[in-house]
Amino acid sequence: MALPKSVVISEEGPREGFQIEKQLIPTDKKVALIDALSGTGLKYIQTVSFVSPNRVPNMVDADEVVSRIALRPGVEYSAIWFNEMGLQRAVALRDRLTVVGKLRGYASDAFLEKNLNRKPGEHRAHTLNEISRYKELGIPITEASVTAAFGCNFSGDVPVARLLSEIAAIKALVEEYDLPIESVSLADTMAWATPAGIRTAIGAIQDRFPEFGISLHLHDTRGMAIANAYAALEMGIRHFDAAVGGLGGCPFAAHKGAAGNICTEDLVFMCHEMGIETGIDLDALIECGQFAEDVVGHPLPGAVKQGGSLTRLRQMLAK
Amino acid sequence: MALPKSVVISEEGPREGFQIEKQLIPTDKKVALIDALSGTGLKYIQTVSFVSPNRVPNMVDADEVVSRIALRPGVEYSAIWFNEMGLQRAVALRDRLTVVGKLRGYASDAFLEKNLNRKPGEHRAHTLNEISRYKELGIPITEASVTAAFGCNFSGDVPVARLLSEIAAIKALVEEYDLPIESVSLADTMAWATPAGIRTAIGAIQDRFPEFGISLHLHDTRGMAIANAYAALEMGIRHFDAAVGGLGGCPFAAHKGAAGNICTEDLVFMCHEMGIETGIDLDALIECGQFAEDVVGHPLPGAVKQGGSLTRLRQMLAK
Repeated sequence: MALPKSVVISEEGPREGFQIEKQLIPTDKKVALIDALSGTGLKYIQTVSFVSPNRVPNMVDADEVVSRIALRPGVEYSAIWFNEMGLQRAVALRDRLTVVGKLRGYASDAFLEKNLNRKPGEHRAHTLNEISRYKELGIPITEASVTAAFGCNFSGDVPVARLLSEIAAIKALVEEYDLPIESVSLADTMAWATPAGIRTAIGAIQDRFPEFGISLHLHDTRGMAIANAYAALEMGIRHFDAAVGGLGGCPFAAHKGAAGNICTEDLVFMCHEMGIETGIDLDALIECGQFAEDVVGHPLPGAVKQGGSLTRLRQMLAK
Repeated sequence: MALPKSVVISEEGPREGFQIEKQLIPTDKKVALIDALSGTGLKYIQTVSFVSPNRVPNMVDADEVVSRIALRPGVEYSAIWFNEMGLQRAVALRDRLTVVGKLRGYASDAFLEKNLNRKPGEHRAHTLNEISRYKELGIPITEASVTAAFGCNFSGDVPVARLLSEIAAIKALVEEYDLPIESVSLADTMAWATPAGIRTAIGAIQDRFPEFGISLHLHDTRGMAIANAYAALEMGIRHFDAAVGGLGGCPFAAHKGAAGNICTEDLVFMCHEMGIETGIDLDALIECGQFAEDVVGHPLPGAVKQGGSLTRLRQMLAK
């Protein structure tokens, strides 16, 4: 398949990055990073997670962070939550945040238990409750995801059949409750995916569920994220989550080597150099990646913020 | 094209890594790293560069390093050189090293000048001298490479036509001097390549020069190396240079953003997980990557040595 002409990147660096850091990051810096990101051309920025600061200390100021962002027209700011209390915090900030519901599938029962402390039946009941709660609040349910879509540190490889059955379950809910969900996000939460696996899984989903678009949430713990993104581009995938500088890492993956999300500026670099539009100013984004290192107080893995963009080099050579 | 069933990886970490480090690495540690690498199943290890220690201080003990390696049967050890003095040092160690000649093309005149201080005509004359010198010494000329094959920090993008003309020049020498050269190595010396560019270039070379195999030497300065390797695998490429731990990065960027050669263990991980054989023991190689960090005294960028192999995880889960 030809590579897509353009892609849409959802920036998840703030949420991914803040949640993993042990030392408390000043609220000012969190807000400054989000405001810098909104100036790069990014249209979707995930800002915070409304979770208990007992579990995720750096989310203690999540509400304040959202309240203080300099909202930029045309940019959608989002947040995540996992329970009623989190939902209420999001709803209270509904004038600033795009608050939508999400169906969450788990391709690993073991990780569902580790992450949310729920058995599959309990998660199913929770999901049904969520759907009615969202309907009650007039919140559209527009998103769906499958966590641990390619493999799990606690249960091993995820067969494509299991991935398909999670998406079939999402489809059944979409039909039963008439939900406006048009795509499913596949999360390689614990970095088990390879380019070949990405191709196989995406091909199977495109065959069986042509009604759903696919987006990818790729972690880089084993260095495969950018190759996985390329394999997905070859399959026509146009939606990616990413994290500036490569911020992040999953706090619940029980894995000290767990790396962050695919680095936004590296992904943007690859797209631009291959003629794929992103609507993002790469050099401005590189500055955000460098600023993100200052915000978290340690180096981040992204390469292009060290190596530099070729745009700038070409401009210098043309002079 | 289907992915290849097996690939051959030439380990260049010792040479790449030692040459870039400012602080002197003890000879013992250099020898120990090479000996550890030869125990992983790697069949080709580039050990040192016979250059002046005035230019590359850590190569001051290059001859001693080669003399002290515990030669392992079935492993070919190599070295590089750029002038008669270097050649003589290699020849003196011919019982320990595989000494072969290499034709070196440069796809950037500007880089040829920066790197070797030669104009194209001077380089051509130097190459002809080298050929007669190798014939004189009974050294087979079996290798060819194109440096800056995809782009150059001093001259910009390399058009495919220029790459093809460099290979045409190599082919003309091969025919004129009846040289046993079967493949050409494309070096992305300054990390300008993208997966799409790799596909275009390799496709053009395969069309025009089906008599030559292609190998790749990929630097990771802009984070594209593993995606570039995947794109090459899709084109049927079976030969890659790589550097354990990702050795070869900037000595001042002592963190995960440092950029050297494509990381051997990350490449091996990708191959194995996609069913491509390498003949290498990944977990032994990961230990070498960790040891390489100790040898150079700072973190190296490779991901799998932090994230861990899935082989080991699967074995634990199976218990």
